Amino acid sequence: MKNKSGPKNLPEEFAGEPQPQDEAKPLSELHPGEAAEVLQNLPAAEQAEALLNLEPPKAADILESLPDDRAAAAIMDMAPEDASAIVQEMQTDEQVDLLQDVSEEHAESILEQIDEKDAQVARKLLEYAEDTAGGLMQREYIPIYKEKNAKEVILHLQVESEKYKDYPATYLYVVDGKGRLNGVVSMRSLLLNKPGATVKELTNTEFVSVPASMPGQELVKVFRKYHYLAVPVLDEEGVLLGVVTEDDAMRFAEEEADEELLRFSGIVKGDEFRDMPFFPRSWRRLSWLSINIILNCVAASVIAYYQDTLQAVIALAVFLPIISDMSGCSGNQAVAVSIRELSLDRIRPGNFLWVLGKEASIGLLNGLALGTIIGLIAFAWKGSVLLGAIVGAALWINTIVAVSIGGMTPLLLRSINQDPAIASSPILTTLTDMCGFFVLLTLATKYVHLLPQ
Amino acid sequence: MKNKSGPKNLPEEFAGEPQPQDEAKPLSELHPGEAAEVLQNLPAAEQAEALLNLEPPKAADILESLPDDRAAAAIMDMAPEDASAIVQEMQTDEQVDLLQDVSEEHAESILEQIDEKDAQVARKLLEYAEDTAGGLMQREYIPIYKEKNAKEVILHLQVESEKYKDYPATYLYVVDGKGRLNGVVSMRSLLLNKPGATVKELTNTEFVSVPASMPGQELVKVFRKYHYLAVPVLDEEGVLLGVVTEDDAMRFAEEEADEELLRFSGIVKGDEFRDMPFFPRSWRRLSWLSINIILNCVAASVIAYYQDTLQAVIALAVFLPIISDMSGCSGNQAVAVSIRELSLDRIRPGNFLWVLGKEASIGLLNGLALGTIIGLIAFAWKGSVLLGAIVGAALWINTIVAVSIGGMTPLLLRSINQDPAIASSPILTTLTDMCGFFVLLTLATKYVHLLPQ
Repeated sequence: MKNKSGPKNLPEEFAGEPQPQDEAKPLSELHPGEAAEVLQNLPAAEQAEALLNLEPPKAADILESLPDDRAAAAIMDMAPEDASAIVQEMQTDEQVDLLQDVSEEHAESILEQIDEKDAQVARKLLEYAEDTAGGLMQREYIPIYKEKNAKEVILHLQVESEKYKDYPATYLYVVDGKGRLNGVVSMRSLLLNKPGATVKELTNTEFVSVPASMPGQELVKVFRKYHYLAVPVLDEEGVLLGVVTEDDAMRFAEEEADEELLRFSGIVKGDEFRDMPFFPRSWRRLSWLSINIILNCVAASVIAYYQDTLQAVIALAVFLPIISDMSGCSGNQAVAVSIRELSLDRIRPGNFLWVLGKEASIGLLNGLALGTIIGLIAFAWKGSVLLGAIVGAALWINTIVAVSIGGMTPLLLRSINQDPAIASSPILTTLTDMCGFFVLLTLATKYVHLLPQ
Repeated sequence: MKNKSGPKNLPEEFAGEPQPQDEAKPLSELHPGEAAEVLQNLPAAEQAEALLNLEPPKAADILESLPDDRAAAAIMDMAPEDASAIVQEMQTDEQVDLLQDVSEEHAESILEQIDEKDAQVARKLLEYAEDTAGGLMQREYIPIYKEKNAKEVILHLQVESEKYKDYPATYLYVVDGKGRLNGVVSMRSLLLNKPGATVKELTNTEFVSVPASMPGQELVKVFRKYHYLAVPVLDEEGVLLGVVTEDDAMRFAEEEADEELLRFSGIVKGDEFRDMPFFPRSWRRLSWLSINIILNCVAASVIAYYQDTLQAVIALAVFLPIISDMSGCSGNQAVAVSIRELSLDRIRPGNFLWVLGKEASIGLLNGLALGTIIGLIAFAWKGSVLLGAIVGAALWINTIVAVSIGGMTPLLLRSINQDPAIASSPILTTLTDMCGFFVLLTLATKYVHLLPQ
């Protein structure tokens, strides 16, 4: 609650918008979140300069509030010695996030300029992948010793209050001489007990901890299950490396979900903002599209095989894209449900048969409805009951196939440790296109002499 | 940190899985998060009974850890008087979430059985929509008065510690006689200051608050901007109604992002788990599909118009589904980027021209690449440079059209307050199919006598 511009009851229409009176104020007097917003509205070239005009601690606060890619761009625009003065003031987890997003040389030049001990910590943290507990944890935690009592701990906190100001201080961590974690004391229990109580008495030795290598997605499940405000990260010897806070974990979960939508739509790596450089953006999209176009050609080759039937019943050419598109739609619904159920642990990769049963029954009903609609349209257009029946049957059958494949593909991909979001849709559409074209054209070939020419 | 089963350093392979030793323990001895997991593995019919075998406070903790739909199903399986004993023990925000998900009669019967005053609070909260600050807030906050001093407040907290046990107690709220919020005191400042300090001295009067009607999406932006652990919710007179905690807001954000993926894939309302009842699931999917099939037929009618050209150059029938599918893919990439940029406030609905410029330039390059690939394939197949050129040009042009429409559709939908996730894709594919079929078949008609018959 460090906002300096007085109480605000944010009305809906202003929330998220810089408020008029804010823009007139210098950046240094705004809440970092507000300053970050003002900064983002400046031309990209001026953002680094605006930060350099501030005191480093203030600039660091604002950098922490900027989206990762913007913060990295601003740091890249600064000389390493200027950047290091700001980076030095950031929290370790934010520091490392940032350095992971700038070029390796630039990161190294910055680390060379900051305090030797801080640089060492940062280099250690940089070894953990961004999306693991090690990459998400911060080193700022308050260690205490079990020999002390509540009063001594409170005195210590008061003496060091400046240092601990920005620490996520819901819990204090009881460590031994070798840095191993013995237990956890909540701020609340410190507050609500007699001053003479020893740390040992207040300590909860029943805590959940995680290894630094735990993937972010698993970490999110731990928070979702236990609802803790922070979880300690330990190495193999039980030494406390840092803590991951609930808000950082949930923020990670939200970003992951956002990026999943992008990967699902064919944006490789799930990351694109339109103010990123042109060629990498174009390339990420194209690399996925060019695999798709090859798969598409493979599927469409089924059509080429039935040229004579098509020549005889040209109306079929109208229904081929419809069958392809509708099966893709039905199948993608099933893909999306499977992706969500997997990410929320509602299904396991082994639940093939259960998913198959659920999807096939939906396909049976919805395919019947869609087949009837398209069959009636075909009949109305050409006056042929047989054409309607063939087109309708093909879509019915193919809808059942599409939802079954759509439901199971993410499970298969997950069970071989591939990302279901990016790969499911191309696999689905290729298989269902082939199947749909085959069913429609085989049926039509069989009755070709009875169909309207 | 209430886990009763001893310290655990969760290894990766166990995270999210009930651990073997847990399953042997009775539910009542497990952490609520673990108990919820065990419960979910029971047959649906036994879940309500298992909860009824527990003490109501324990059952309430477990219910709070269950996914919303499962918790509601369990409560629906209980008689109102049994359910009310458990509901009575839940936190207000969880209580209301739950009652919103059960039938109205059942909710009313439960409310009639619980404590009159609690029921009144719950009825009041039920008036707020689930996805607003009012719906996300909880009533459990600790009010204090500015006339007191730190020592008195701490004594009060100690006396009431049982009551306040489950409160999100990072901040204390300074209210006046009419319940209006005057300021905020952090637990930390209470702890780190002299006992004689008055509440008035410790109070931060510069706080951010939100109205109960603020939509959840806007609320998330407030948390993303200010990084607070909790934000107070006020009515028009400034009376404190409740608080929204950061973890609840971020949890909401994550659920929204998950549901956006489902809506984007055509699951109406963005909510489906396969253990929900069959017919509503089928209907939500079908309602979207049946609009799509009609749109598809409209688009495909363009093909019908060019029957003669198709009859003359049957090879075109192979390329129609490819053009349709690839344009859909390219366009959906642009749709997804716009949806994400809108939800993170990186673009505003008014930034049409900027988005158009960015997308058209990507379309120009990627369309050229895709057009070249398909052109070469067409040439290789039929040995006709002209066929290759026409098919390639059609895909090039249509890719530019698709990404431009794909990028702008979410902005247009948002500016008329429609949900971009569910509606963008059908609009996109209809328009790009029509355009793609039209371009390919018009070009082909013009040069029909030169194409391979």
